[in-house]
Amino acid sequence: MPEIRQNIATKEWVIIATERSKRPHDFKAPERERAEKRAAFVPGCPFCPGNEGMTPDETFRIERGGAWSVRVTPNKFAALNREGERVRRIHGVERSMSGVGVHEVIVETPLHNKTIALLSGGEISDVLAAYRQRYESILADPRIELVIIFKNHGEAAGTSLEHPHSQLIALPIVPSQVRHRLQDALIFSDDYGECVYCRMLREERKDGRRVVAENEHFCAFILYAAASPFHIWVLPKRHAASFGAASDAELKNLADILGRVLRKLYFGLDDPDFNYVIRSAPNGLRNATYFHWYLSIVPRLGKAAGFELGSGMFINPSVPEESADFLRGVKS
Amino acid sequence: MPEIRQNIATKEWVIIATERSKRPHDFKAPERERAEKRAAFVPGCPFCPGNEGMTPDETFRIERGGAWSVRVTPNKFAALNREGERVRRIHGVERSMSGVGVHEVIVETPLHNKTIALLSGGEISDVLAAYRQRYESILADPRIELVIIFKNHGEAAGTSLEHPHSQLIALPIVPSQVRHRLQDALIFSDDYGECVYCRMLREERKDGRRVVAENEHFCAFILYAAASPFHIWVLPKRHAASFGAASDAELKNLADILGRVLRKLYFGLDDPDFNYVIRSAPNGLRNATYFHWYLSIVPRLGKAAGFELGSGMFINPSVPEESADFLRGVKS
Repeated sequence: MPEIRQNIATKEWVIIATERSKRPHDFKAPERERAEKRAAFVPGCPFCPGNEGMTPDETFRIERGGAWSVRVTPNKFAALNREGERVRRIHGVERSMSGVGVHEVIVETPLHNKTIALLSGGEISDVLAAYRQRYESILADPRIELVIIFKNHGEAAGTSLEHPHSQLIALPIVPSQVRHRLQDALIFSDDYGECVYCRMLREERKDGRRVVAENEHFCAFILYAAASPFHIWVLPKRHAASFGAASDAELKNLADILGRVLRKLYFGLDDPDFNYVIRSAPNGLRNATYFHWYLSIVPRLGKAAGFELGSGMFINPSVPEESADFLRGVKS
Repeated sequence: MPEIRQNIATKEWVIIATERSKRPHDFKAPERERAEKRAAFVPGCPFCPGNEGMTPDETFRIERGGAWSVRVTPNKFAALNREGERVRRIHGVERSMSGVGVHEVIVETPLHNKTIALLSGGEISDVLAAYRQRYESILADPRIELVIIFKNHGEAAGTSLEHPHSQLIALPIVPSQVRHRLQDALIFSDDYGECVYCRMLREERKDGRRVVAENEHFCAFILYAAASPFHIWVLPKRHAASFGAASDAELKNLADILGRVLRKLYFGLDDPDFNYVIRSAPNGLRNATYFHWYLSIVPRLGKAAGFELGSGMFINPSVPEESADFLRGVKS
């Protein structure tokens, strides 16, 4: 019998399709060129050192040994305009907001042929430090409601450029999905007197079957109601609604656990395409007691089709507990 | 300046990325084999006539001239079990429902090398009549909360079999996205005293810039806040929350407008991959005054990446009014 599971925090249901379930190793990515086989420098790549003139002026950099190790620039093809007023317009059924916001690119390493899973803990810490600096700096702008930091790794995950990079989009509105999740988290807190994410973290650590990795400040686990195979949340143990509140010690710990989890995917599933995203509270709710920031990792091992579009729910052909057991056994 | 638009019914925001927008014809699908070039009969295809034994026993058929023209069977690799009790389980953060439900396949034509856009009005009417019969018959089961009817056309839309077919999944729960949309529609109705979909329909018909096709009982328009290029809703003019309430005359009209819109996509964009889905009320809300059933068409012309996963909102690189103008000019 298949099982339909609900994520207690987001309230999203997923069909765990046990009848057509696959074993964890069935999700290995097809054979293809690994990043390490590429050249370390590509003349036409806008993110390779020496080509800095191909991108808009940088907004932040971290230097190591006299050269940049992480570099942030506006996206050359930005989805939103950095300049301009926030103007809300309501005209009949047409409701709009001017497209002001920020769209930046975080270049994670000068080396074209690296991949984040294979960066050192210190290098990943630098990437996360750049995320936090940009996050805090951009949220200081009162036009901004929400900052989303994400990474697209591989073609199925929507990458158009090979050179390792992440992106940041800052919005002048709160997307309805985010608003609904906040409301549902508030209802849980109102009913049970605690943050639903804190509760989930406590129960997942106690149960242990879905835990993939853990360190002092973080726990990474496959979701009980994973929307897709190997859908992982990395939750900070200390309650905080905003990613910007992460301390230096926490960022260092996050770099450690993120590296370990990504290496488990890299070695266990042969470098699958994946997205990750940092989910954090909107500007006005940075100190909310009922919402909790986290990093969500979604390997792109399936395809959303009509059912998913028509219901917002997913069919997961893997069993979360089996996937977690598999990943725990992979070196990292 | 880009524009951020909100769908007044679903409350979903989308970035209309005018700065990197493309012209409508830039979305033409790449050159590839058209269905008509294939053989009309494929020996190993489970949906071709003569191979009926390759599928589970059929649940419904429509006959024309002594042979079936539309055929419905359980999905051989069903995501849910038809038999069994609805059992809700709550254990700590684990919340689940037994995986009971229905998963069927609607074979739209005996001919392997057809495509729904090129079926006659009468043939499409038969497909819709099969949808309605299955919809009503399955919703009579009190274990079922919601029935989703959808079609995946082409690889990017998640098809695994070439032979033209649609699917039906009946769920014993209401997905959270559907619940949120119902709540938002209820709030609109409470605030303004009418169904938000009826309002949208009236305004879109009056405005006309986004209308693609119209007939006696239906209007098809590109959404003001289209989540992706050529995202189209086909709304019945008569208020009804349930697709099952569609009359024979309405189904005939729906076949007409659906065929016209799909042919506009087929000829105008060179047979793009697409999904469509019928959005209808849950079992208990079949007579709701605040929700309205409709058919949503989503050509798969882009890719969801980290931003979409992390926010539930989309970036649309096309301008809805331009796309509608383009489609109005395509023969159908």
